[in-house]
Amino acid sequence: MKVFKIPEATVMRLSIYSRHLKHLQDESIETVSSEEIASGVGVSSAQVRKDLAYFGEFGTRGVGYKVQDLLGHLKKILGLDKKWNVIMIGAGKLGSALALYEGFRERGFLIRTILDDDKKKVGSKLKDVLIEPLELLDTRIKQYNIDVGIITVPAVAAQDVTDRLVAAGVKAILNFSPRVLKVPGGIVLRNVDLSVNLEVLSFNLSFNK
Amino acid sequence: MKVFKIPEATVMRLSIYSRHLKHLQDESIETVSSEEIASGVGVSSAQVRKDLAYFGEFGTRGVGYKVQDLLGHLKKILGLDKKWNVIMIGAGKLGSALALYEGFRERGFLIRTILDDDKKKVGSKLKDVLIEPLELLDTRIKQYNIDVGIITVPAVAAQDVTDRLVAAGVKAILNFSPRVLKVPGGIVLRNVDLSVNLEVLSFNLSFNK
Repeated sequence: MKVFKIPEATVMRLSIYSRHLKHLQDESIETVSSEEIASGVGVSSAQVRKDLAYFGEFGTRGVGYKVQDLLGHLKKILGLDKKWNVIMIGAGKLGSALALYEGFRERGFLIRTILDDDKKKVGSKLKDVLIEPLELLDTRIKQYNIDVGIITVPAVAAQDVTDRLVAAGVKAILNFSPRVLKVPGGIVLRNVDLSVNLEVLSFNLSFNK
Repeated sequence: MKVFKIPEATVMRLSIYSRHLKHLQDESIETVSSEEIASGVGVSSAQVRKDLAYFGEFGTRGVGYKVQDLLGHLKKILGLDKKWNVIMIGAGKLGSALALYEGFRERGFLIRTILDDDKKKVGSKLKDVLIEPLELLDTRIKQYNIDVGIITVPAVAAQDVTDRLVAAGVKAILNFSPRVLKVPGGIVLRNVDLSVNLEVLSFNLSFNK
């Protein structure tokens, strides 16, 4: 696939379109117009056409898109036909909750091991994944050919853990800690900070009162 | 507090600064410069000063900020001194995981009840919160004086649930479903779509390969 710059907002919408197409497929609907996708997900039809145009011509004028074909294309564009080996660092409250979340596996993110520096947690399992000592970070990354590190450690430890993951060869970091992380160029970094989202919500609620 | 337009990115950084200041406070550090905050969270010191300037003069030139005072100010700005009554709709895999997340309570978001339309789930508890039938939506929102609705239902049901929450009087929606929601003006909407984040990560990993 050719590498060219796609706006992140476009990729986020492709993800949302794919979920809507999956829903249409489950309902046995075979074709869909850009207008129908647009109203199904809450954006304009011009936006849908523009987003899809980045990746070539999928639809037929006057007919629309074949649901199954377009869904297949989007899954491929989003890399959902691939598997990624994942290590999770931090088996605290958030890590434990996330380890139970099915959405990782459904998208090809396979959590191979969970590391924690708390001796009391080591040895127990979250779902079917063993919690192991943090000292095994390098060993396990090589052994399982890890692509992605999920960080759920406290903010103060997050940059150090990140540096160790990057040095050990991970290609991407999914950061759930409330810390702005620095990574070298070429490393994919994605921040999902629930606490920031809650505090923005709290801010907006306060100001709207 | 006066209502004026603060960029969302600023509010997100204030949230991150507050976490760093909490860390400094825990370490018994009493004063901090904008440079130290900046390097602690990974932004420029000019950015820190600009973000804080929205809310008045907190620091002293050449001395910096008093950690405890600035933290107190930020918590107040972010509304973290308030309590919000929360209803969660959807006790599926994501909802169950989120109900265990301590961060809600720590920020004043008190989950009063969890509703689900699955009869098998109704009656059991997630932590100390009872799962109740979806039919109680209006009753419970009035009874508990609910401010915030957390949506963890499947995409297809999300808009309908949102409309019911808004009609029943909630002021804010925290949407974890993969659906672009429409809400009337004046209702605070915040989307935290983990699946979109995973798919953007997957996209970036695929394109970087």
